[in-house]
Amino acid sequence: MIKVAIVGYGNLGKGVEKALAFQSDMECVGIFTRRDPELISSNSAVYKIEEIKNHKIDVAILCGGSATDLMLQGPELIKDFNIVDSFDTHAKIPEHYERLNKVARENNRLGMISSGWDPGLFSLMRLLGEAILPQGSMATFWGKGVSQGHSDAIRRIEGVKYGIQYTIPKKEAIDKTLAGNGLNLQARDRHLRICYVVLDENAKESEVKEKIVTMPHYFSDYDTEVNFISEEEFFQKHNKMPHGGMVIHHAKTSKENSQAIQFQLTLESNPEFTASVNVACARAVYRAHQEGRVGVVTMFDIPLSYLSPKSDAVLRKELL
Amino acid sequence: MIKVAIVGYGNLGKGVEKALAFQSDMECVGIFTRRDPELISSNSAVYKIEEIKNHKIDVAILCGGSATDLMLQGPELIKDFNIVDSFDTHAKIPEHYERLNKVARENNRLGMISSGWDPGLFSLMRLLGEAILPQGSMATFWGKGVSQGHSDAIRRIEGVKYGIQYTIPKKEAIDKTLAGNGLNLQARDRHLRICYVVLDENAKESEVKEKIVTMPHYFSDYDTEVNFISEEEFFQKHNKMPHGGMVIHHAKTSKENSQAIQFQLTLESNPEFTASVNVACARAVYRAHQEGRVGVVTMFDIPLSYLSPKSDAVLRKELL
Repeated sequence: MIKVAIVGYGNLGKGVEKALAFQSDMECVGIFTRRDPELISSNSAVYKIEEIKNHKIDVAILCGGSATDLMLQGPELIKDFNIVDSFDTHAKIPEHYERLNKVARENNRLGMISSGWDPGLFSLMRLLGEAILPQGSMATFWGKGVSQGHSDAIRRIEGVKYGIQYTIPKKEAIDKTLAGNGLNLQARDRHLRICYVVLDENAKESEVKEKIVTMPHYFSDYDTEVNFISEEEFFQKHNKMPHGGMVIHHAKTSKENSQAIQFQLTLESNPEFTASVNVACARAVYRAHQEGRVGVVTMFDIPLSYLSPKSDAVLRKELL
Repeated sequence: MIKVAIVGYGNLGKGVEKALAFQSDMECVGIFTRRDPELISSNSAVYKIEEIKNHKIDVAILCGGSATDLMLQGPELIKDFNIVDSFDTHAKIPEHYERLNKVARENNRLGMISSGWDPGLFSLMRLLGEAILPQGSMATFWGKGVSQGHSDAIRRIEGVKYGIQYTIPKKEAIDKTLAGNGLNLQARDRHLRICYVVLDENAKESEVKEKIVTMPHYFSDYDTEVNFISEEEFFQKHNKMPHGGMVIHHAKTSKENSQAIQFQLTLESNPEFTASVNVACARAVYRAHQEGRVGVVTMFDIPLSYLSPKSDAVLRKELL
């Protein structure tokens, strides 16, 4: 059994715990948290993060946020353990990679960063599309899904009690991209933003709406729909974290022939799916480290067979 | 420049020649054929297959058929060259692998078999789905596309002058599978078969139709539509080789949450797309062999980064 530690017990950590239960060759050795373990309700053993060094762990899955947790915890934990994270701040990936890679090599550990679906599976699809059809054009669509960043932006507006934002890909843009006519699409053409807002008692709909739709970076470049709803409806209908999206690559391989590659995810729970990817990646990290690999990798760098518990011969027979 | 040889110049070989022209780090060193080179019209150099040993070649892409060519040519050519093939007779893959692997290892060569889209990209998607969500259910749909085997079966019927068969996935079955209700679907529920037939002068529509729809293995287990058309219409509308399909993996990650992974190809030319995959795989074989890898691999066994001409750092920056 591959011994996996869960570091951090938010939505992602809870998802990893569930995902591990579906894998017959892996087990959860414990949840490691900064909070008081007594206050955490879980079927797994729960420990203070400081105790992690006392445990035998094959791979630690880091379930904190990219903004602060992962860049601090990673270099510390990789001194003692192989790790997987789902670091998704694109601009800081090179910096995160370099720091982690140095410590990993010094300590003969292996880490996989930016595992999940974007970055992660979507990245693999972008690579495949570009490598196979370098003459083509590619587009990524997101949604229907909750954007945490845009939801936070709404909540910061005065007068907003609760708020959530769904990113919706536009069907017309998807169709154009699939037909090879998507190159000149603007942000506004690709995605629609729909907000559901519960107002504070004295707040005015018109004022809040105006502040949302004109907000630079977040909403001003998009068609944004704002719906005001009751607190009751908000907690009844908007309590899930769906997400997903699509990577489309289109190319002509000759004057006559167009080809389209399309990868789509429809996720009712973004954290549970991301967690499932991370767990399969933990298996890959374990196997590659057993073979002597150290440093930092991404999903680009490991054969996909390493994600599976099956032998190469069985994979060829059953799945090829 | 990676020097690539094309062995066999049918539809697939012609596709490889076109695909190589889109890759900036690869070049076609020649087409090698069993036919008389004088009779072949191509912009590339054309040689007799016997002359291949006189050429410096990094990777030879074998473009013959699985039925006979590949199992004979592979073990011969891999004595001297790294190879890629698109062997797709599923039942014989273990046998083909073993024979080729032995010769490859004895001669320090590397071969990749069963490259393309099914086997190939679809295989990768099946592996990803199963590794990430082992609790789920998976289905592969094919089409809309021309099935060579079924078209051949029609043409063998007395009274048929020309014939072609399209496999069409049924939308209802796809929707059910995406929703996680696809487990009990039968062959007839998943795919529809549509035939276009040009009759010989004295043949009877009703007799030919009856022979098609009742043909065991090929048509009797399916809903089959037979259309009789003129020779003119046949050559005008049915002169392409479109194909494609879909791999769907569905699973619940908890009582509340369903997840769906969907990979779809819409190909106007099956051979040109398969050729494009083979060319990217030739790059992967070249790179892995440079690093000392020998034997036989499939797309499962090589990191996807090897398919791309970009460095790992550039891939992380641009595509992750």
